[in-house]
Order: sequence, then structure tokens, then C-alpha cells
Amino acid sequence: MSKERIAIDMDEVIADAVHRFTEWYHRDFNVLLTPEHLHGKHLLQAVAPENQQHLRKYLHTVGFFQDLPVMADSQDVLRRLAERYELFIATAAMGFPLSFSEKFDWLRQHFDFIPTSHVVFCGEKSIINADYLIDDNAYNFKDFRGEGILFTSHHNVHETRYRRVNSWQEVAALFGV
Amino acid sequence: MSKERIAIDMDEVIADAVHRFTEWYHRDFNVLLTPEHLHGKHLLQAVAPENQQHLRKYLHTVGFFQDLPVMADSQDVLRRLAERYELFIATAAMGFPLSFSEKFDWLRQHFDFIPTSHVVFCGEKSIINADYLIDDNAYNFKDFRGEGILFTSHHNVHETRYRRVNSWQEVAALFGV
Repeated sequence: MSKERIAIDMDEVIADAVHRFTEWYHRDFNVLLTPEHLHGKHLLQAVAPENQQHLRKYLHTVGFFQDLPVMADSQDVLRRLAERYELFIATAAMGFPLSFSEKFDWLRQHFDFIPTSHVVFCGEKSIINADYLIDDNAYNFKDFRGEGILFTSHHNVHETRYRRVNSWQEVAALFGV
Repeated sequence: MSKERIAIDMDEVIADAVHRFTEWYHRDFNVLLTPEHLHGKHLLQAVAPENQQHLRKYLHTVGFFQDLPVMADSQDVLRRLAERYELFIATAAMGFPLSFSEKFDWLRQHFDFIPTSHVVFCGEKSIINADYLIDDNAYNFKDFRGEGILFTSHHNVHETRYRRVNSWQEVAALFGV
């Protein structure tokens, strides 16, 4: 039997993009967005309305996706998962064309054990043919053909429709590695 | 019932990359690769062995994917298909990271009726969840979950395992648009 296939999102799942948002927001407005600020909210909901437009532009700024911190334990657990499952990285990059090369380089740097042939830049994730999708955005599960597994992030803490994992250690336990 | 989904490859299906190969090869070696040279062969098989390495580098050269000619009738037929089917562009770009922005810009220029959310840059196409895949490379059909439809190109004329279309007019007839 062929291996089951797991697709894994990038931002907030293996790459800490919130770190960059809060870092730049602090630089630009001298306001520190803490986990308490963000709990239960999307980033745009957590900032002053007059700053939302500025925040939106970060995603279209060169350097935003560069050198993002790696989410805790993601390398170690994915390395173990790779022995038993077929892994694909699936990231919604089409909305941010500037991110292509930064995301690609980041993956080469931190997840070189996942071949480039198993990297997908897409728009919507219903196009992904996999058994599982680990993602922090529940809307990506809507037309996904496999099972969506929600990776906890500040903005999704009130979502109850999907199986949830709070850490990569919980992913390891779920898949028995 | 939701629309059936068709995934469409880029190079040799909607974008004429062979045009660029032959153009640059002529520029560099003063040899014109004609359809007769190429019939039944991959590009690398059609050139002198000592020039193969040079040819390979074209794919990793800035500008290669820029301003490629659009394949005959592809815009018109895809526009009609878009009314009855869900269309995704799926291109194996991961082997050529320099191509990301050129391919993205080209699609915006020539196929702006296909939303960016329906563009996929991938490595292998088994990751694509679609009912049909129109592609010139039969190896992409191997683990594809839908039906592969082979778009005729010089290198695949001897392939007999898949349904074949010789033009976008034949695609239109096949899908009844």
C-alpha cells in the first residue's frame, strides 16, 4: 500500500509569520502586540483601524517572509513523519507574488529533507490531493478532499469544527511518530 | 452538482516554450531546430551532445519564460471552458525557481480571466486534485487521480497510453464547448 499523504501549510504552522508582523508593527507604531492582544482575533482585528492598511502592506513587502523563525519542534516532527508518510508543503502564495522566492529559499534552508518536488504554491487548497491537511485556517478545509487538522493559532481558538492540534508534539502523537 | 475541474499545464500547452528554446539555440549556435529535427524527440535528444549542458541552462536563465508566445486558440477555448468547468493552471515550476515571477506575470497578462487563486506552482502533479489534467508530459499522469489528456508536442508523438488532443480546437470538441 502506498504511504498516506500529509499536506502542511507554512505560515503559523511551520513558519512564525506573526513574529514578523509584531516585530514590524512594534518598529512602525511602537506598540507591542502580545498574545493577550491577539487571542481570538485576526491580526487586523487586533490593531487600530487606522493602521490596518499599513499592516496589510507587510505581506507585499520584500523581506517579510525572509528569516522567519521556525515553529517549535516542526523540523524534528516532520523529519520523523517523513519516514512513514508522504509530505507536501502547501502554501497559499499566489496572493503575495513577492513571497515566492523568499518562501522557496526558507524551505531549502530549514526543511531541506522535503524535496522541492513536494512543495506547492497555490491559491486555494481544494486543489491539493492529500489525505490530511495541517493548517491554521479552517476555511482551507472547506472543499479539501481529505481530513483537515487545525493547527492552533491566536485567530482560530474559537473554531470547533475540526480536529485540533496545539503543537507539533501533538501532531507527532496524533500520527504515532 | 459542482463543476468538474480541469487542470491545465503551461509549457507546450498554453505557452510556447519550444519557441524560446529554438530562438536562443539559433542565437547561440546558428542552428535552426525545425519541427522535423524535433519530431519524436526531447529537445536534449535533438541537439549535439556537447551543447546539451548549454541548453539545460536556458531554463535557469532570467527571461526564458518572459513573453513566450501563447499557444494557438488556447485563450479562446479556455475562456469558453471557464463557463462550464472549474479551471486551474498547474505548472511544475519548483525545478526552476527563477521562473516563478515570469510565469505569474505571463498568466496575468494572457489569462487574466483565470484568478490567481486558481494558479498552482508545484513539483509533481500527483498533488493536483482535479478531474482532468491537460499536459504534454505523460509522466505527469502516472499518479494523477483524474484522467490525463495528452496535448500533442514533438516529444510525445509516440506515446499511446492516453487520450490525445492535437490542438485547442480538439480540446474544445472533447469538452463540448
